Amino acid sequence: MAGKASDVQSRRVPGSYRLTRVGVTQVKKPVCVRRPGRTITLTPTISLFVDLPASQRGSHMSRNVEAVAELVERSLSKPAPSLEALCAQLARGLLDRHEYATVAEVEMKADYFLERRNHSGKPSMEGYALLARAVAHRGGKALVRKSIGVEVVGMTVCPCAQETVRQYLAKRDRRIRSGECPPPMLTHNQRNITSLFIEVPEKFAVEANDLITIVEKSQSSPTYELLKRPDEGQVVLNAHMNPKFVEDVVRDVLKKVVDAYPKLPDEVAVTVRSESQESIHKHNAVAERVTTLGELRRTRPLKDFNRKSCS
Amino acid sequence: MAGKASDVQSRRVPGSYRLTRVGVTQVKKPVCVRRPGRTITLTPTISLFVDLPASQRGSHMSRNVEAVAELVERSLSKPAPSLEALCAQLARGLLDRHEYATVAEVEMKADYFLERRNHSGKPSMEGYALLARAVAHRGGKALVRKSIGVEVVGMTVCPCAQETVRQYLAKRDRRIRSGECPPPMLTHNQRNITSLFIEVPEKFAVEANDLITIVEKSQSSPTYELLKRPDEGQVVLNAHMNPKFVEDVVRDVLKKVVDAYPKLPDEVAVTVRSESQESIHKHNAVAERVTTLGELRRTRPLKDFNRKSCS
Amino acid sequence: MAGKASDVQSRRVPGSYRLTRVGVTQVKKPVCVRRPGRTITLTPTISLFVDLPASQRGSHMSRNVEAVAELVERSLSKPAPSLEALCAQLARGLLDRHEYATVAEVEMKADYFLERRNHSGKPSMEGYALLARAVAHRGGKALVRKSIGVEVVGMTVCPCAQETVRQYLAKRDRRIRSGECPPPMLTHNQRNITSLFIEVPEKFAVEANDLITIVEKSQSSPTYELLKRPDEGQVVLNAHMNPKFVEDVVRDVLKKVVDAYPKLPDEVAVTVRSESQESIHKHNAVAERVTTLGELRRTRPLKDFNRKSCS
Amino acid sequence: MAGKASDVQSRRVPGSYRLTRVGVTQVKKPVCVRRPGRTITLTPTISLFVDLPASQRGSHMSRNVEAVAELVERSLSKPAPSLEALCAQLARGLLDRHEYATVAEVEMKADYFLERRNHSGKPSMEGYALLARAVAHRGGKALVRKSIGVEVVGMTVCPCAQETVRQYLAKRDRRIRSGECPPPMLTHNQRNITSLFIEVPEKFAVEANDLITIVEKSQSSPTYELLKRPDEGQVVLNAHMNPKFVEDVVRDVLKKVVDAYPKLPDEVAVTVRSESQESIHKHNAVAERVTTLGELRRTRPLKDFNRKSCS
Repeated sequence: MAGKASDVQSRRVPGSYRLTRVGVTQVKKPVCVRRPGRTITLTPTISLFVDLPASQRGSHMSRNVEAVAELVERSLSKPAPSLEALCAQLARGLLDRHEYATVAEVEMKADYFLERRNHSGKPSMEGYALLARAVAHRGGKALVRKSIGVEVVGMTVCPCAQETVRQYLAKRDRRIRSGECPPPMLTHNQRNITSLFIEVPEKFAVEANDLITIVEKSQSSPTYELLKRPDEGQVVLNAHMNPKFVEDVVRDVLKKVVDAYPKLPDEVAVTVRSESQESIHKHNAVAERVTTLGELRRTRPLKDFNRKSCS
Repeated sequence: MAGKASDVQSRRVPGSYRLTRVGVTQVKKPVCVRRPGRTITLTPTISLFVDLPASQRGSHMSRNVEAVAELVERSLSKPAPSLEALCAQLARGLLDRHEYATVAEVEMKADYFLERRNHSGKPSMEGYALLARAVAHRGGKALVRKSIGVEVVGMTVCPCAQETVRQYLAKRDRRIRSGECPPPMLTHNQRNITSLFIEVPEKFAVEANDLITIVEKSQSSPTYELLKRPDEGQVVLNAHMNPKFVEDVVRDVLKKVVDAYPKLPDEVAVTVRSESQESIHKHNAVAERVTTLGELRRTRPLKDFNRKSCS
Repeated sequence: MAGKASDVQSRRVPGSYRLTRVGVTQVKKPVCVRRPGRTITLTPTISLFVDLPASQRGSHMSRNVEAVAELVERSLSKPAPSLEALCAQLARGLLDRHEYATVAEVEMKADYFLERRNHSGKPSMEGYALLARAVAHRGGKALVRKSIGVEVVGMTVCPCAQETVRQYLAKRDRRIRSGECPPPMLTHNQRNITSLFIEVPEKFAVEANDLITIVEKSQSSPTYELLKRPDEGQVVLNAHMNPKFVEDVVRDVLKKVVDAYPKLPDEVAVTVRSESQESIHKHNAVAERVTTLGELRRTRPLKDFNRKSCS
Repeated sequence: MAGKASDVQSRRVPGSYRLTRVGVTQVKKPVCVRRPGRTITLTPTISLFVDLPASQRGSHMSRNVEAVAELVERSLSKPAPSLEALCAQLARGLLDRHEYATVAEVEMKADYFLERRNHSGKPSMEGYALLARAVAHRGGKALVRKSIGVEVVGMTVCPCAQETVRQYLAKRDRRIRSGECPPPMLTHNQRNITSLFIEVPEKFAVEANDLITIVEKSQSSPTYELLKRPDEGQVVLNAHMNPKFVEDVVRDVLKKVVDAYPKLPDEVAVTVRSESQESIHKHNAVAERVTTLGELRRTRPLKDFNRKSCS
């Protein structure tokens, strides 16, 4: 009886409010995950929540951590197929462990590295973030919606200041004015962080490495940890021949996503966000789109957007 | 013509996607705001966004900063009535300045201080955060929805471990077992951060100082910067006689909000979030409710929740 | 006796180790400070420490907070002359309150704003950080060493990539090769954060606003919150005609400091640190010099450094 | 000649100042490191600096990143013996690559996990941070000083408030007054972060796992990610029977270090820092000792410090 009495969390609350989400954040654990061609250790920071009915005082939060601990253990012998699969497994596990819950949510974020080659072919490990999320609803069969995301640090080059500078210098120099073989024009450029988050329905697969490539190809240029002098010059030139607003980055990611996943269903949620740490300001510039694949397909640009003319 | 050509942002994009929000973050400016009985300087960190139609390449972000600069200037001679009023003004101003936008969003967060007295009556300045947000929709008349929020650092004392310890010690001590005048039982306790965010419809007023009081009264105890020894003992004792899960904190805030604002309409959005930096874990515990006043009123607990019996 | 017994901190420890510093961090309070031509409210984040002899178990930390509370109160009626004066007052106060201590240290950091005009003369409030520090030693007379510092966000333009790009393009274009009136060459540029920290001996005064100007003039360009299109072009052009490594920024600050304060004594400590959030890398570039005015004067460059030839 | 001219960093500066440190921060790379009984992947965040003579304009920072890249590569085939060995290798490598430098500094910080068992024997992975640092001086033979450190999140229980509460309750209860078998008294307790940093001379070895154990045994209690109800009660009880100021934590670490490493030479530098995120305050409490093993040995407490009497 004492044992039962001590379950303070399960006490029936004579009257109270239900809660949208109750759980733990900042749980950090190493897990083994399969990536194309290899198995790696990731160390995600994890949040796990369930909802709580009005009739129950507290959620048994240690069950959330227990679910994580078991999964970590299991991944050592049998690596998880992906971070989002881990989230989905955990979300289902939370519904099993919290019999009173109707929804479970799990989120993860982890450092991730890929080898990239700069212009002279030298390889270096570049750092990214992997994001994953799963929401499980209790029902006839447990429905789990899972998503995968990436966060990529790259570079943006401002098209607007580039055009202003071109006009300014054209007043002084006939050759720039006449468009006679001008070098790519100088402008401000800066570190840019762009994230792409996309739902992955059951029986479909989206590979994080592909999402990273999509984002890197949508910024003015990828950034590289290791650049010897000629590589550095090449990155600068390429970036200046590919000037981008944060708005352009988001739209280019959206277009590439539509093209890359023709088989994903219309209801798939897509979020793209791009933030530039402006070199000429103390504040940041941001653009974001929250949408679905279906909406993107319905509003697909008829003619392709050609920004070359702008700058 | 050159002048026109240089408006790179306004260029008609032959085909592209609309964007949900485009703008600036991390803008920090001092503004003068009226508070009950005085005028103070707050230094909010500000985000400002508008949406962007598919046909336009870029948003003119300098207009956002211009809107802020004018408001800052104006507040020096005529202090703003509140942070959320400032947000609403800015959101309206963004729609005026971005003729292509249909929605404008503004968010602010600022340090804020109130004098509090500890148990021996000694005053000290305690720090809080003020939050504010406004969303303006273009329409027959510009509709602006604004919200006000607070973030309060306090203390939670765990009821569950308190009960476990009581049972554990009761096995060794008849007097604890018999309930014969037990001292409040020891348990773990920790720093807790709780935020309350509530919509403020036109012609209604919600005072941030009241929201801070509501949250402080819902935690196990407020925290104080200045506590001499007897005050410290008293805070510890009071907190242990008032043990709270994060779930309890959120629900108690919800109840106090329902009681405090009987005249606010049903559609008013309310969000409460409580996070405890668990002293016995490396992770945090979180509870949250996202709801409306109407939903809270419909599900109001019939009998008052009495947690005294639990511990 | 009970009262005495309860002073757990003062208990004589039969044998233990002395401690270098014991105190509180993350204390945040609004204080009134005089600035040139006006009185403003700053909200510094404060750390306060004293040393602790081996014979005493604990420091009475509430005395630190008490000292702050009194100072805050006093500053409302009589604004402090400067943040570093406040630190010095607090450091002396700590020695008075902790009779066992031989050293007291106080540090502050606060947001700070100055009006700046961009190229078209438009004013905007730009944000900086003020830093201050004081160390008091108990002795014949209490000796207090105080320092003042600033943190300035600006912009650096890379001279190295600029030169590489110039050479690269020169191969394709005779006019660039011949140096025939070349426009400033494109390169990568980024947000740069530079701090300058300098000791202020008794009876000398160093004005924070001057330090901010020194740093801003040493970066490739200041940054501005508000830039309409022509201003933006001008900032970009000026910055590109003034390319700087972080090394250059630190050295230029050092030179300006030597020139600006001929009367400050040789033993004055000076620290300058510059960090660029590289736009072409995911990591940052840093340069730092920790020195004294005397050492700088002894090693003063004979001929002036002329970097124009480099790029 | 053009190639030579383009080495902007190597240009002789006619007159300038030397710089204390120049390099890169925020470099993040996965490396393979041997730990007792296994090989693991760590992902340290790395800073690398060299000094710069007055005669040279810039440091070749890409050489720093190159050094890291080679080391990462090499560690895949041949895991590094420890993080501090990696730092030492890198510091030596920096002197080789920067022929003008006289000092090289390398710092790393990485997440690290160990299996811990709670009171009921259940294992869980607990998270820590590994710290490492090496400084290489150019000389007859390259002298490298390397250090190893750990950062441990645990729990402190305040002895002062515990005593105040005991006295307060004793007035009401004869049995507490008489000391007749009192339960451990309630007080405030909180998350505590303690770091221990110690130099490792050539030919000596200090194992990070041991340092973690030393710190965990010096806090009021370790914290655990996974605690079922009886474990949680036990952690709370144990912690309350072991109340500690941050001052106590630092001194207990110092004592254990002196006992654990009798063979390390006197000149070995030791730094211990403990910070408690006070549950009753909005600010933190900190204690720190910066010293050498020799100084600790000379001032070693004659009689052992017995804090049991205090509470």
